[in-house]
Amino acid sequence: MNKKELISQIKQKQSFLCVGLDTDIERIPKHLLKLEDPIFEFNKQIIDATKDLCVAYKPNIAFYESMGVSGWKSLQKTLDYIPENILIIADAKRGDIGNTSRMYAKAFFENLNFDAVTVAPYMGSDSVIPFLEFSNKWAIVLALTSNKGGLDFQNITDEDGKRLFEQVLETSKTWGTDENIMYVVGATRANQLSEIRNIIPNHFILVPGIGAQGGSMQEVAKYGLNSDCGLLVNSSRGIIYAGGGTDFAEKAKEQAQNLQQEMAVLLSEKGI
Amino acid sequence: MNKKELISQIKQKQSFLCVGLDTDIERIPKHLLKLEDPIFEFNKQIIDATKDLCVAYKPNIAFYESMGVSGWKSLQKTLDYIPENILIIADAKRGDIGNTSRMYAKAFFENLNFDAVTVAPYMGSDSVIPFLEFSNKWAIVLALTSNKGGLDFQNITDEDGKRLFEQVLETSKTWGTDENIMYVVGATRANQLSEIRNIIPNHFILVPGIGAQGGSMQEVAKYGLNSDCGLLVNSSRGIIYAGGGTDFAEKAKEQAQNLQQEMAVLLSEKGI
Repeated sequence: MNKKELISQIKQKQSFLCVGLDTDIERIPKHLLKLEDPIFEFNKQIIDATKDLCVAYKPNIAFYESMGVSGWKSLQKTLDYIPENILIIADAKRGDIGNTSRMYAKAFFENLNFDAVTVAPYMGSDSVIPFLEFSNKWAIVLALTSNKGGLDFQNITDEDGKRLFEQVLETSKTWGTDENIMYVVGATRANQLSEIRNIIPNHFILVPGIGAQGGSMQEVAKYGLNSDCGLLVNSSRGIIYAGGGTDFAEKAKEQAQNLQQEMAVLLSEKGI
Repeated sequence: MNKKELISQIKQKQSFLCVGLDTDIERIPKHLLKLEDPIFEFNKQIIDATKDLCVAYKPNIAFYESMGVSGWKSLQKTLDYIPENILIIADAKRGDIGNTSRMYAKAFFENLNFDAVTVAPYMGSDSVIPFLEFSNKWAIVLALTSNKGGLDFQNITDEDGKRLFEQVLETSKTWGTDENIMYVVGATRANQLSEIRNIIPNHFILVPGIGAQGGSMQEVAKYGLNSDCGLLVNSSRGIIYAGGGTDFAEKAKEQAQNLQQEMAVLLSEKGI
């Protein structure tokens, strides 16, 4: 999916919601466990309940990988089930030397047909560039993450007063364009979004950390929205585990609806 | 495998060689392609040819992941085939927020029974610590990598003159011990190994970049060896693709033997 199509979806649905499919066999409702593929059944119902309210799904690859071959099968079925007009992000945090990143890009873009992959920048240019060589696909580069450890290194300041995440933004934006790179900025760092917007005014930003991790949608929108919207705000646990019983899909829909309605107001205030 | 057992294997085999299993369906000899599982058949013959010469194998996970479910099956068979007294490293460069890193740790340490996983440090403490919570398992944290892009960020110097990779070493070594953390330092950065040894005198260092990437074993040993050896030097393409025909295993053995003999001299000079 290209940028124009993504923006069109956002306008149509009045939503910039991404639903994180962090599907954990130990957290899904017990009544699903007797089915042949509980992970897929859970995802299927979550997708049915939320597909009109979100513009992206983000399977967290660790959760599937931890289940071995059966996890990859559940993931494949989930991908096949997601409607075509929704962006699909592999939250995989990959990144390695060039020939190896190329293999990861092939795995996610060709074999699994994801639209986007999250990428860790520590190894620099040749670890990211192979992900930029596929048309209508995206590398989503970690800039400033929402977790506690995010500040261990990302905030380190160089001799010129520039922090590591700023260097990552400034350097990596030259490797591609706002048509094939997005960035991850955690919702818990919303106050830094306006500085980040100065460096990357036009790029889409994927914002995790709303809900379970404590970030605020209003803050994120205030500092992060641009004239194209330019944001994808993710909620995983806050939506998919909103209910714990047979009503889990209904509860997920309610949570997604609350977020979408909040987003619609924010978009309309911005004239989008 | 714990540190004592690893050192004992190094002494016994007079080798600190790690063989990288970057097994690529497009590079393995053509005669294997007619077999049911060419990837496993290739690995099996490489393992038969090199198992007495190396102390570790390092499957590069991207190469298996890029083949989907069949790749994971080939990987599982390969792991089952590797003798028990050899350390097995998942070269996976994983790392995410705590609950997700925990899933990756489970995938590699519990389901696949790897001894070690390479981990990217960009997301800080809670992205690495979940890998340290398994007994006799290792997180191998990226410090200074061998690739061209490695210097894009890893060499950035802070206000006190400290480079990012030094900060990663100093901070991350407090998260565990030299019994559960190793570090990646590329062979192409051998001249920086002595500074690195000052920060981590006792940790094992995994050194890729010998061979195809141009690093020198002599330099690596000069600056990197400690009284326990403290090094695992990896060669992937230089060994596994030394021959391209039916003699590939024989050629791989020759290359592994050359490296092991060079290592034996270096170990003996050091009295190990």
